[in-house]
Amino acid sequence: MQRYFVDVESLTVNDDFQMDKEASHHMLTVMRMQAGDKAYVVTQSQQVFIGELVDSQDKMATLHLAEEVHEKKELDTPVTLFVGLPKNDKLEWIVQKATELGASQIVPVAMRYSVTKWDQKKAGKKIERLQKIAQEAAEQAHRTFVPQIGQLVTTKEMAQMMGQFDRVCVAYEEVAKQGEKHRLVQVFEGLETGHQLAFVTGPEGGFHPDEIELLQEDHDNVFICGLGPRILRAETAPMYMLSALSYARELL
Amino acid sequence: MQRYFVDVESLTVNDDFQMDKEASHHMLTVMRMQAGDKAYVVTQSQQVFIGELVDSQDKMATLHLAEEVHEKKELDTPVTLFVGLPKNDKLEWIVQKATELGASQIVPVAMRYSVTKWDQKKAGKKIERLQKIAQEAAEQAHRTFVPQIGQLVTTKEMAQMMGQFDRVCVAYEEVAKQGEKHRLVQVFEGLETGHQLAFVTGPEGGFHPDEIELLQEDHDNVFICGLGPRILRAETAPMYMLSALSYARELL
Repeated sequence: MQRYFVDVESLTVNDDFQMDKEASHHMLTVMRMQAGDKAYVVTQSQQVFIGELVDSQDKMATLHLAEEVHEKKELDTPVTLFVGLPKNDKLEWIVQKATELGASQIVPVAMRYSVTKWDQKKAGKKIERLQKIAQEAAEQAHRTFVPQIGQLVTTKEMAQMMGQFDRVCVAYEEVAKQGEKHRLVQVFEGLETGHQLAFVTGPEGGFHPDEIELLQEDHDNVFICGLGPRILRAETAPMYMLSALSYARELL
Repeated sequence: MQRYFVDVESLTVNDDFQMDKEASHHMLTVMRMQAGDKAYVVTQSQQVFIGELVDSQDKMATLHLAEEVHEKKELDTPVTLFVGLPKNDKLEWIVQKATELGASQIVPVAMRYSVTKWDQKKAGKKIERLQKIAQEAAEQAHRTFVPQIGQLVTTKEMAQMMGQFDRVCVAYEEVAKQGEKHRLVQVFEGLETGHQLAFVTGPEGGFHPDEIELLQEDHDNVFICGLGPRILRAETAPMYMLSALSYARELL
């Protein structure tokens, strides 16, 4: 059943709710929904309703919210993913996959070894496009929350944000090469419900050692972690971390 | 340092070894290696040597195997990944990522809901191309082993192979929707070194219930597993399983 995030804080069972123009178009023209067909409606406060199409006049879809469903789809330790700007369209791919895997926020970071540079003028458009990818992926993954795409920051600006998190895991290839094995487990095993997590991964060239130093400066909540014995590409490391977190927090 | 898999069963420290034409071209023309430059040489029996370029006459590279390094890069429970044929070029992507994440063998499966069909005549070329992608990914990931790409099989043929494995995990969305949470953990926690594992994931449309039945028929080593509360795309499910396995077996 199709899922739609709506721009409303909260709704109530038995409300009739008119979808906006874009969602109405998707329902009526793309999905060809007929009166009586159902879809999920998700509010900004993460309520989930089963809505039934009751009206489609003037190409606007109105749903009757027949039932509220209570489902736990989100990690209980929200994760912000800081990603060193990768090459080509890899960031789009990372946003899609990280959304499926449960990230709450994704922040692109202009790192020392990032080959890709963002033109200030085009950054707004890029963020907008990434936000749309996140929304579609959240709908497909049956999430109750659309991850927020943050503004591009520098490594220095990112380092200044580290104090906001209970735990920060930095995926650093050099410690993996030295056989570091247990830090990710230690962090995950020490988590409590509601803890705010950050994952930091580098671009194709990895981190400059100064960047690692900057991240650790003044912060005892920052952990440099290996992700197993194999070398993972820039876009694979965040997927590994999010999958491992889901395994550790949602299945274990 | 660049890594090359060579077509030789085993080598010995202090051997001088001439690379084949393709690797020589890569070393001398692409990487522009000079006398004294080093690269890893990996044999079919998973020996890893540091080789030093000593000769490049006639565009053929000869390396002196200066040192053998002992590194554990492979999962201690080999995994065969059976993948329902996905759309477009997603299989190439899955092969690349599954190689980074440690799969030993990847077998494409023509499933009921696979939209993509392989033309028999072109199957050989496709497998060859996937094998090349696996080799490149194995070099980049610093593995000691190139995963083997299997021939395309039907669901029925796959089901007949299940007896070869100690444990089989099938990622089935329907059990995830019902909140199945612990089976993957149970399987992973029961693993012992050397156990042969299989992971089975569906195409975009998922499994037909008959396929699930077929897989479980006569096999008590087949476990139907949920991968957490969110719905993962066809290409994301194998990544989740391999990452979780690495976390459980290599970090925990």
